[in-house]
Amino acid sequence: MLIVGERINTSRRPIAEATEKRDAAFICQEARAQLEVGASFLDVNAGTFGEKETENLIWLVKSIRSKVDSPLCIDSSDPEAIHAALEICGKGMMLNSISAEKEKYPAILPLIKEFGCKVVALCLAGGEIPTELSSKLKIGLDLVEALLSDGVKAENIYVDPLIMAIGVDQQTGRVALAMIKELKTKYPDIHTISGLSNISFGLPVRKLLNRTFLTMAMAAGLDAVIMDPLDKEMMATLTAANTLLGLDYCCGEYITAFRNNRLGR
Amino acid sequence: MLIVGERINTSRRPIAEATEKRDAAFICQEARAQLEVGASFLDVNAGTFGEKETENLIWLVKSIRSKVDSPLCIDSSDPEAIHAALEICGKGMMLNSISAEKEKYPAILPLIKEFGCKVVALCLAGGEIPTELSSKLKIGLDLVEALLSDGVKAENIYVDPLIMAIGVDQQTGRVALAMIKELKTKYPDIHTISGLSNISFGLPVRKLLNRTFLTMAMAAGLDAVIMDPLDKEMMATLTAANTLLGLDYCCGEYITAFRNNRLGR
Repeated sequence: MLIVGERINTSRRPIAEATEKRDAAFICQEARAQLEVGASFLDVNAGTFGEKETENLIWLVKSIRSKVDSPLCIDSSDPEAIHAALEICGKGMMLNSISAEKEKYPAILPLIKEFGCKVVALCLAGGEIPTELSSKLKIGLDLVEALLSDGVKAENIYVDPLIMAIGVDQQTGRVALAMIKELKTKYPDIHTISGLSNISFGLPVRKLLNRTFLTMAMAAGLDAVIMDPLDKEMMATLTAANTLLGLDYCCGEYITAFRNNRLGR
Repeated sequence: MLIVGERINTSRRPIAEATEKRDAAFICQEARAQLEVGASFLDVNAGTFGEKETENLIWLVKSIRSKVDSPLCIDSSDPEAIHAALEICGKGMMLNSISAEKEKYPAILPLIKEFGCKVVALCLAGGEIPTELSSKLKIGLDLVEALLSDGVKAENIYVDPLIMAIGVDQQTGRVALAMIKELKTKYPDIHTISGLSNISFGLPVRKLLNRTFLTMAMAAGLDAVIMDPLDKEMMATLTAANTLLGLDYCCGEYITAFRNNRLGR
C-alpha cells in the first residue's frame, strides 16, 4: 500500500501559518513525522493562497527538499505552479492531478512526460462527476487509455474514482468499489488511489467512516491512498487490512506495528 | 445484517459459573443486553459441560425463554441436546450447525426439517477443512445443493466459509471473501454467516483484526455474523460498513447510532 501523506496542505491552519511565517522547520517536522510512520510520498498543496499559490508552493517544495529526502506529490491545478515545483524536484515525483477535462488534460500531460511523473488521474470529464457506475467507469477507462496511448507508463497511472459524500449519494461507496475492481481487472498494471475522506462529508464520526471505507477499498484492490498517516486508528486499520488480505508475510508487519505500539488496544 | 449474539456460551467463565449456580437472572441479563444493542438471535452453547451438556443446555434455554422473547441459535453438535432444546423453543430458531460430514449431516437434517430451523452450514467434509478456494468452495456448493434438494428453504441456509487463523494461513481471508462472493452469486437467496474471530487467533489486538475483517466480509456480501454485540467498536464498524454499502437509507441508522452514543469518538 502506497501512502501519500496529506498533511502539508495550506487548507490546514498550522500549515498556512507556517507558510506565511516562512517557518521551514515546522514544515520539515510535518514532513518527517509523516515519513516516519510510513508515508512514501508527501502531498504539497498551497491552493488556498490563490494568486500567490506558485510562490508559496515553491517555498514549501524548496523548504522540504532542502532538508528531507522524500518524493513529493505536487498538488495543484495550475500548470505554471506545477512546472516550477517540478523543476525544483526533478524526476520521480507524483502529480495530483490530471483529468479528462478538455482544458486540463493537454495542459498537464506535457508536465507528466517532461518530468516522468506518477500521476493521479481523476475520473472527471466535462466538469461533471457522474454518479452512475457505467458513465463514471467509461470516463476512467477512456482516461487510462488516453494516458497510455500518450506514452504514460501504466505503473505511473493512479486512477482516483472520485468518491462523493455518502450522505448525499448512498451508492457512491458501491460505485467506487466496483470502479476499483473493474479498473484493476482491465488494466492490472495501473494503480488506484483515493483520498477517501470525501465519503464522510457532512456526517459525524468521520474517521470511523473513512477507515471503514479504506478497508473495503483495499479489499477491492485499492493500492494507494492519500491520507493523514498520523491518524493512528486509520494506520492501524490499514496495517490490519494489509495482513488480512494476505499481503503481510507471516504477519511480520502486523507484529512489528504492535511492538511499536501502533495498533492501539 | 443479522446479528447472532455469541455471549451465552459456557466457554466464557461468567456464563459457566452462572449455569452451575443456576443463576437465571444473570443469564437473562446477558440475553437482554445483547438484544438491546441489535442482536436478532442469541447463540446458546453449553458444550464445555461434556456429558452434562444436554442438561445444562436445556436449563439455559428454559431460563432464557421463560423471561426473554428472542429466537435462539442452538449451538451444539449433539443431536439429542439439540432436539431437547428445540422441543422447548418450537419453530423459527437457528441451529449451529450442520456440515457435509458423513455422520453429522444425516443426524442434523431431520431436526432442521422437523423444527423448520434456520441452519448454519459449515464448509466442512470428511473431517478436514481445505485451505484452497476451489476445494472449499466445492464443499460449500455441494452442501447448499444437498440442503436444497433435501427440502431446506434457501432463505434458511446460512453458509459459514470457516475462516482459519490468518497467522497460520495468510490466504484464509482472501479465500473466505471469494467464497462469500461466489456462494451469493450462485445462490442469491441463501445467506452467508461467520464467527470471524478465528481469523485473529494467536495475534495481538484481535478485535482490530476481527472488525476489519467484518468490514471486508460485509463488502463481499456477508449478511449475518456471530459476534459479541456489546463490543462497541465492532458494532460501530458494522453500522459504518452498512451505511457505506448503501444499505442505510439517508444514513438514518448511522445518525441514530451517533445520537445514542454508539459510534465512539
